[in-house]
Amino acid sequence: MVIKALSQLIATPQKWRDVLDTPAVVVDLDVVEKNLQRGADVARANGLEFRPHIKTHKIPMLAKAQMELGAVGITAQKISEAEVMVDAGITDVLISYNIVGDQKLRRLRSLSERVKLRTVADHKTVVSGLAEHFHDAKTECGVLVELDGGLNRCGATTADVAMEVAHEIDAAQGLRFDGFMIYPAPNKWKQAQNFLAECKLRCTQEGLSARVLSTGGTPDMLNVAADDNVTEYRAGSYIYNDRSLVEFGTVSEADCALSVLATVVSTPTEHRAVVDAGSKSLTSDLFGMENFGIVKGHSKARVFALSEEHGHIEFSPLERPSIGDKLEIIPNHACVVSNLVDYIHFVRGDYLVGKQAVVARGTVT
Amino acid sequence: MVIKALSQLIATPQKWRDVLDTPAVVVDLDVVEKNLQRGADVARANGLEFRPHIKTHKIPMLAKAQMELGAVGITAQKISEAEVMVDAGITDVLISYNIVGDQKLRRLRSLSERVKLRTVADHKTVVSGLAEHFHDAKTECGVLVELDGGLNRCGATTADVAMEVAHEIDAAQGLRFDGFMIYPAPNKWKQAQNFLAECKLRCTQEGLSARVLSTGGTPDMLNVAADDNVTEYRAGSYIYNDRSLVEFGTVSEADCALSVLATVVSTPTEHRAVVDAGSKSLTSDLFGMENFGIVKGHSKARVFALSEEHGHIEFSPLERPSIGDKLEIIPNHACVVSNLVDYIHFVRGDYLVGKQAVVARGTVT
Repeated sequence: MVIKALSQLIATPQKWRDVLDTPAVVVDLDVVEKNLQRGADVARANGLEFRPHIKTHKIPMLAKAQMELGAVGITAQKISEAEVMVDAGITDVLISYNIVGDQKLRRLRSLSERVKLRTVADHKTVVSGLAEHFHDAKTECGVLVELDGGLNRCGATTADVAMEVAHEIDAAQGLRFDGFMIYPAPNKWKQAQNFLAECKLRCTQEGLSARVLSTGGTPDMLNVAADDNVTEYRAGSYIYNDRSLVEFGTVSEADCALSVLATVVSTPTEHRAVVDAGSKSLTSDLFGMENFGIVKGHSKARVFALSEEHGHIEFSPLERPSIGDKLEIIPNHACVVSNLVDYIHFVRGDYLVGKQAVVARGTVT
Repeated sequence: MVIKALSQLIATPQKWRDVLDTPAVVVDLDVVEKNLQRGADVARANGLEFRPHIKTHKIPMLAKAQMELGAVGITAQKISEAEVMVDAGITDVLISYNIVGDQKLRRLRSLSERVKLRTVADHKTVVSGLAEHFHDAKTECGVLVELDGGLNRCGATTADVAMEVAHEIDAAQGLRFDGFMIYPAPNKWKQAQNFLAECKLRCTQEGLSARVLSTGGTPDMLNVAADDNVTEYRAGSYIYNDRSLVEFGTVSEADCALSVLATVVSTPTEHRAVVDAGSKSLTSDLFGMENFGIVKGHSKARVFALSEEHGHIEFSPLERPSIGDKLEIIPNHACVVSNLVDYIHFVRGDYLVGKQAVVARGTVT
């Protein structure tokens, strides 16, 4: 497979395990290509429009690769991250986040004048803010009502609340009610689709048209079946994968494209090695699991604690590596790892192909 | 108090809660000044040389403020962070981390030619690496033996091991054995000082001189008593403080200089508000606690979960804020928060005084 967007990175004769200083965040492009293809295939097989979430990688090159494989557009959670992608040429964006406050609403309006833009709302206060900034817009801003998918996060918790917000949007000058968006908690994809179905039916009964029914999430991506109650799928982590998805059973270790290369700096006991990748490289995200990553090639090793600059790992004495040895650790959660570094080192198999800035990291607002 | 290093930041008439877009990491310089003074005073009162750890702030301006108040030098855990500080004019550095591998050892040698430098070792392999790069150095490199202070991290676990490493250092061309370094686990400062005392005694018996006996940590900073078995104190968090230190009883909420300003973006139930500061702003560090921060002015609010861009907060119904309200959250662990952002917004009371780049963040190696 040749993905044009990735062809700017050309394999070098340098072996990355030899040349990279540690800690280093490394992404294997061969694995990325397979993951990208799998995501695109699953969406296509189920008749769904695919709208990858760029929060995982924050790199324009990868967003373009996702578009090249058939994505209808991207999902972004922040205006600043969307702005980076639009500057790089992406032309269709869903901001899957309530946009609140004048500063952000002005930027949202500005973005809407450059690309096809859609956003979400889960409360009439959010709708009012949008309406205030879009009432005189030449092109209406599409708005989806966010539903709570079981994470106790944002989103209308009942169809009654959702419909109230839907009617607010429909009635507002400058806004266009487009449908519903949900992010299912892991294992709750079926309930999420039922919630979408319920809201869709209510729209039919109440004279609204829900053209977009958007669900998402990598954990249950392979479970989602073709269903009239979903039109769009959003996924972020599928491009890199991580330990949480291996533990959840979605993918295998070989599907994890991102790892942290670390050096053993101390071996204080026969059971313990300490590496130079701590919470500043792997993050403290547990995602409901115990321990902090998979040590490749050491299935019984346990990353039992992280300090900022130290990963504390327990080994069986026969397996314990020595000071100076390098280890590759698949993190619990890839998205937060790429948010920690300014650069990702891309490789293919044993060879380095070059580094890319994580352009949208640190944009914050 | 006037700290010259901080005088470049001049109060503006802008009220930061009104003008900053969220999320924003905010540091109150009035509180920082008090914290800096307290750290310096505690060290002085106990006859200890003070060597602040710059990992917490990663900002040259603040390292200079620490030097101005009498610090003998700084502590850094990474060569890259030390390089930033040396470039900015700091002339005395302890790298409190085993330096392993040719790339880093070459940079360490190079740094040693620019400033007064000391490093640590806890194993003969680390000593060999240092010796290989310093055997022909004009000025010897000072080396402390790291001892395990109960964190199950790096460090010799017994005096026998420590003395073996001490003798290796003493025998190596280009290295100078300077003493011992320990980082006590919280509440274990006394055991740590006993370990230092034991090693010091062994040195006397075995013909070595331990000029430096270095301990540290903000949690027990106020407990450390004048003691012949300690000569140097290292602390990092004391400059900002955080929820972990409030819970531990070291400081009060008013001593916390760093907070994250966040906007309420959703209020899905009467008990729940969701803010735009998630794990990408507050980090998932629990530090042995439950929940993810102190919501200022809402002592009963509970930040019960973080997604990347969402902070999920439980309130009593009467206290629950509304969409658009701004909240200030003191994070569990300040050091990892300043590592997430490119800029810190400095304020004095209600007024903005300017932003400073977190220069050493993202330097990684």
